[in-house]
Amino acid sequence: MAATKYAIGVDLGGTKILAAVVDNHGNVLGSAKKSTQAEKGVEAVIKRIVKAAEEALDDANVKKDHIAAIGVGAPGLIDSARGVVLNLTNLPGWRNVELARHLRSWHPATVVISNDVRMAAIGEHRKGAGRGAHSMVVVFVGTGIGGGIILDDRPWVGFRSSAGEVGHMIIAADGPFAIGNGIRGGIEALASRSAIERDLRAAIAAGRKSILPELMREKETDTITSSILAKAVSKNDALTMEVMRRAARYLGLHAASLINILDPEVLIYGGGVIESLGEWLLSQIREVAFEHALNKHHLNKVRIVEAELGDRAGVIGAALVALDAV
Amino acid sequence: MAATKYAIGVDLGGTKILAAVVDNHGNVLGSAKKSTQAEKGVEAVIKRIVKAAEEALDDANVKKDHIAAIGVGAPGLIDSARGVVLNLTNLPGWRNVELARHLRSWHPATVVISNDVRMAAIGEHRKGAGRGAHSMVVVFVGTGIGGGIILDDRPWVGFRSSAGEVGHMIIAADGPFAIGNGIRGGIEALASRSAIERDLRAAIAAGRKSILPELMREKETDTITSSILAKAVSKNDALTMEVMRRAARYLGLHAASLINILDPEVLIYGGGVIESLGEWLLSQIREVAFEHALNKHHLNKVRIVEAELGDRAGVIGAALVALDAV
Repeated sequence: MAATKYAIGVDLGGTKILAAVVDNHGNVLGSAKKSTQAEKGVEAVIKRIVKAAEEALDDANVKKDHIAAIGVGAPGLIDSARGVVLNLTNLPGWRNVELARHLRSWHPATVVISNDVRMAAIGEHRKGAGRGAHSMVVVFVGTGIGGGIILDDRPWVGFRSSAGEVGHMIIAADGPFAIGNGIRGGIEALASRSAIERDLRAAIAAGRKSILPELMREKETDTITSSILAKAVSKNDALTMEVMRRAARYLGLHAASLINILDPEVLIYGGGVIESLGEWLLSQIREVAFEHALNKHHLNKVRIVEAELGDRAGVIGAALVALDAV
Repeated sequence: MAATKYAIGVDLGGTKILAAVVDNHGNVLGSAKKSTQAEKGVEAVIKRIVKAAEEALDDANVKKDHIAAIGVGAPGLIDSARGVVLNLTNLPGWRNVELARHLRSWHPATVVISNDVRMAAIGEHRKGAGRGAHSMVVVFVGTGIGGGIILDDRPWVGFRSSAGEVGHMIIAADGPFAIGNGIRGGIEALASRSAIERDLRAAIAAGRKSILPELMREKETDTITSSILAKAVSKNDALTMEVMRRAARYLGLHAASLINILDPEVLIYGGGVIESLGEWLLSQIREVAFEHALNKHHLNKVRIVEAELGDRAGVIGAALVALDAV
């Protein structure tokens, strides 16, 4: 029997860092969460990554020298072969940072760095809703839309390692621009939480009635969060229902496109919007997808299911990818 | 040195049957073309396939018993594992036809049957514009839009063998319906020759001036063929330019979506519309694609090139796939 191996998985985000000690079966033995404090600069953030890793070790009661590998998912462009972060979204100063070298000076293990959503997609494949399936597309619907593609049990990364940008498929060519640097008419510009919030605010500014302003006051927030969206849907707020149904339709058309070109075994949906709205949203996505998928009369329909790991998908995926490289 | 092997490749179409004798290097040694006469029924069409194969053998001066395999590409749903044609577009009566068994009763060789555009995509990969590249998407723009996806040097066929339907990616969700049984807002409904013809006819019916009616009278045809489109573009016909530029923009957005999710090494364009309009169309597709591809500043841009094999792609692909199975 092979001995159990341990890795640290890190999910580096713009606002928080999640670290976990994970074994080679994908079990999380301990974890820690810290604020990123990205504004303090690269060096300070690296120190906080190390701190989070040490706290996760403590939580898991695993000794540092039992750790064989460290995997990091980061939100941006990564040169995985060299372990260099090329450029991160929402983390100022992160350009050409030799993160693998820095982490190895803390602990001389195998270090693997890759894109955060790609790591999370791998987590869902290996230990979440994609267990046992050989091909899948994972779509995370949150502030933005990202995801990953697994084909023949491996992530499809493409020729320049930039494949899997499922948020940037163009679904409504003459539709709205994305918030940020996204693509006009891309699914992120149509159905992300940011896009939904943009449409809701525009309608309210134009005089449409809605309980959303009241819900935001109650929760003392300026943001139309995913949980506020869910609350408004549960209360049958007409404006929210209308905007969410439009977003669901676009997500269903996006799913149909993915099915028509990739014919995956499973489509997995995660992220804050899905976590808050769950089956109410998924059932609409399924309906539109099957209606527009080419082989709609196929008996053996693609499974469209919810992700299972929540925000642990990233650390589990990162740890398992890193252990693969040992 | 391995001995040269020979196969017959067949491209079964709604109006014509192309057969060729092809060696294991993808060289065409001889070929024959016959009308399909689909209206005469399944048995008559199978006889014409055999006739075309015999004429190709004669043209190549290769003996029937030197043929190790027969590959057939057919326009519709195929159960490749059983060698059964499930359902063909534009060929009445082709439901659950055991084509492999019929062909083996003519010649007891290995018979492989698959979708026609998938066979043509494999032809372009192995012997055409995709030689040497390991991942590619092939897009044929003709009366409809079809194609195929090659990843890691193999066709990606998907979980239910229905992947690669690149003509049914939704690009303009609220756009027009396809002619036939296509999908609303799918690229086939926006940029196929049928879609272009639909838009041109509507504009002419609404009173727009164009030289197209005159060109059709000259060519004695009721159809706005690809070569008539090319003629009208060469004469700077304002309406044709406008409609073609819109189609080119949609093809460019479609290419951007493909690049963003699959990041292939090469994108290959073939089919009648591309053959007639060539670089004039491709340069517009490239410009829009690079503008909307996520990694647009990437130095190593995806190559977007024209297919090289014309209507021989299908027979070459079919023959090589069949030889692989020997």
